[in-house]
Amino acid sequence: MVHLEHRLARADVIGEGGFTYEDWELLLRRGDEVRAKVRKMGPGFCRLPYDDPSDMVRFARERRGMYSDLVVVGIGGSALGAIALISALSHPYYNILPEEKRGGPRVFFSDNVDPWQLRGLLDVLEPRRTLFNVVTKSGGTAETVATFLVVRRFLEDALGGSWREHVVVTTDPERGDMREVAGREGLPAFPVPPDVGGRFSVLSPVGLLPAAFAGIDVGELLAGARDMDLRLKNSSPEEDPAYIGAALNWIFYGKGKRMTVMMPYSRALKELAEWFRQLWAESLGKKLDLEGKVVQVGPTPLRALGATDQHSQVQLYVEGPPDKFFTFIVPEDYGADFVFPEYYPDLDAMGYLAGRRMSELIKAEQIATAYALAEAGRPSMTIKLPKVDPYHLGGLLYMFEMQTAYAGELFGVNAYDQPGVELGKRATYALMGRSGYEGLRGEIEKFLGGIVI
Amino acid sequence: MVHLEHRLARADVIGEGGFTYEDWELLLRRGDEVRAKVRKMGPGFCRLPYDDPSDMVRFARERRGMYSDLVVVGIGGSALGAIALISALSHPYYNILPEEKRGGPRVFFSDNVDPWQLRGLLDVLEPRRTLFNVVTKSGGTAETVATFLVVRRFLEDALGGSWREHVVVTTDPERGDMREVAGREGLPAFPVPPDVGGRFSVLSPVGLLPAAFAGIDVGELLAGARDMDLRLKNSSPEEDPAYIGAALNWIFYGKGKRMTVMMPYSRALKELAEWFRQLWAESLGKKLDLEGKVVQVGPTPLRALGATDQHSQVQLYVEGPPDKFFTFIVPEDYGADFVFPEYYPDLDAMGYLAGRRMSELIKAEQIATAYALAEAGRPSMTIKLPKVDPYHLGGLLYMFEMQTAYAGELFGVNAYDQPGVELGKRATYALMGRSGYEGLRGEIEKFLGGIVI
Repeated sequence: MVHLEHRLARADVIGEGGFTYEDWELLLRRGDEVRAKVRKMGPGFCRLPYDDPSDMVRFARERRGMYSDLVVVGIGGSALGAIALISALSHPYYNILPEEKRGGPRVFFSDNVDPWQLRGLLDVLEPRRTLFNVVTKSGGTAETVATFLVVRRFLEDALGGSWREHVVVTTDPERGDMREVAGREGLPAFPVPPDVGGRFSVLSPVGLLPAAFAGIDVGELLAGARDMDLRLKNSSPEEDPAYIGAALNWIFYGKGKRMTVMMPYSRALKELAEWFRQLWAESLGKKLDLEGKVVQVGPTPLRALGATDQHSQVQLYVEGPPDKFFTFIVPEDYGADFVFPEYYPDLDAMGYLAGRRMSELIKAEQIATAYALAEAGRPSMTIKLPKVDPYHLGGLLYMFEMQTAYAGELFGVNAYDQPGVELGKRATYALMGRSGYEGLRGEIEKFLGGIVI
Repeated sequence: MVHLEHRLARADVIGEGGFTYEDWELLLRRGDEVRAKVRKMGPGFCRLPYDDPSDMVRFARERRGMYSDLVVVGIGGSALGAIALISALSHPYYNILPEEKRGGPRVFFSDNVDPWQLRGLLDVLEPRRTLFNVVTKSGGTAETVATFLVVRRFLEDALGGSWREHVVVTTDPERGDMREVAGREGLPAFPVPPDVGGRFSVLSPVGLLPAAFAGIDVGELLAGARDMDLRLKNSSPEEDPAYIGAALNWIFYGKGKRMTVMMPYSRALKELAEWFRQLWAESLGKKLDLEGKVVQVGPTPLRALGATDQHSQVQLYVEGPPDKFFTFIVPEDYGADFVFPEYYPDLDAMGYLAGRRMSELIKAEQIATAYALAEAGRPSMTIKLPKVDPYHLGGLLYMFEMQTAYAGELFGVNAYDQPGVELGKRATYALMGRSGYEGLRGEIEKFLGGIVI
């Protein structure tokens, strides 16, 4: 079972950098109200673990053998969930394995509009053996639509009218331009539930269809999420890891820790931290609170990786400004291990390792880092995960989504919108000459002191 | 030529979030002194562009054809530079290209002690065709030494005594346990200059040997760094982009912008930002200033990627707390491009793209994001890079190293040590049973409230 420890966040253990007994009482006192509010509102993502994935799973099962490559064309919430799932649950060098060991297509993500990257990707694909999954909730995301246009040309040049057998769409069930395109062209299309925002959509076809193509057990992912849902529902605030995670982050933000560092000691979970980084930043980084007051609030999420970032960021974490709260994630079982052989027993740097296991070393490093932070008065919590498998990962993803929903209540903001990206989108349209945006173009040029593009 | 623009950091353009005329005067006033101090001290990295790389280049040229895989075993400064070079300058899917298109071995990095990751890596390697480059400046880095022990076993099991033909060491020229091992076993070994810290070592064999194996023109990298060195040396503070970058970061830190976001609009430069993240954090995140006073100073570097992170972080950047300063990096030439075909001219989300180029879109997105930030009073500067090629990348790396050295002076800290990682290292030794650390183990267990491992 996923387990959360917060001893090294307590003031009686680490000193004044920690949370006090009064803080703890406050967060417990607010627990029932906050959790009840979220449950009553019932954000759309809560329903996803109970949806029936069988259409999608069947589609993936039937088509897996037909393609040597799957390319997910999507950006932000349309890519990060699938990236997190596949990088955690597939072989770490999945795309390099020989086809017979993979048992399914290689999986690539086209999540930018960098021509160098897309040119390179098309270089390694064979149109006849490639399936593109175009994912956009609104159906109009500029980067995704732009890439789709290039991809259609790439396929059509090689395959003519049968390009249509190489595209599957994931988008709004009724609205938007990609839904329209799917209809006109007869492309298969899976729905993003309209009430689920992109960053909460990992357990919808947005995340699950690519995962199914990679051979991941989607049923287990959903079972893990359902069991987590029940566990959270049936626990007291004190025993609810999603609530404690949210509330400690909120308490520490109030104490001036404006950054929250998610640092898995597991390469498999590196991209999970990247997914969380979006979830947390877009949900909580808000100008206005729920009453419309200007608050400019929101902790900044940082993604770090143990043990690697001990040699990059820990100097700053331990000695720099005390402005961070840390969340470690540690698997109990790494699914593989090595015993260090006894070479060079006379050499200081090597002798002590003989007979110890690599999993012991990485766990020791996590404890050592948490300890060094605690010694410097810097608070952390640690999430222990029995294993990085579909069941536990499904639970963890759901837990973090619920943590985010709770945090929205605690910070007093709408966790489900993203008004701050609108101006940038409109400015892009203006600069690209989309009609209706001529006035904005003039505004931008004034700001930049001349013609800009 | 690399060019820095800072109009959107000025208070007269973006309002009170920007720097004032008085700030500008202050930073210019300090410019000569700061730059002279750094030049006089002459940090070791300044010499690297003038070193002769021919031994190393010859070694790589002779051996490139012998191996199908190169694995760099190193962590932190022993890996990040080579990762930045290779991911910027090789094909974006280099390891997936067929051997004849690569012209050299695939390149992997073993930069952690995650048993799942290492097991997966060894799965895809053939010992007889693999070269391991073990990189550790001190010769005693726990993660690197531990991985080396496993790698030797892996090679020896398959190849017996000829495992020695599959390891090349990069370490201190005289001291340390890996130097000792290289001597005993007769392994080829390249030096890390003793006066160059890991995070400043990209232009030494630490970064250049793997780059040479990947077929990168090392001479051009160094030429670009030399030309940048001359340019910085011969410019006034106002025209010195390294100094302006350092000084604006310092000014904005003083105005409460505790985070600095490096956001290249180029997939090729994503890992450069990861390299910078170490350089900046370890160099400037310090408890003590140069006079030994407790300051707990240091901006926290964040790595972001345009346009991708517009769909992940920009909501927070625009609407959240005004606590960040932004550095964009934009190539003028992406080295590839696409013209968007005219499909679906009647659909709003697609019609406006027809006939425009993908490079225009990504550049428009960068300007749009800088504009949206500026509208919200958030300052940014933009570095324009003519092209991501060895010459310009060499210059850019050197510029950032010099920026960091200048910033050390401005923040008043020693940019070349990392005392904050010592306790964590010692705690790891204690937990792993290395002799001499028994007392510390007891301390840790007291802190953690029981036996921990």
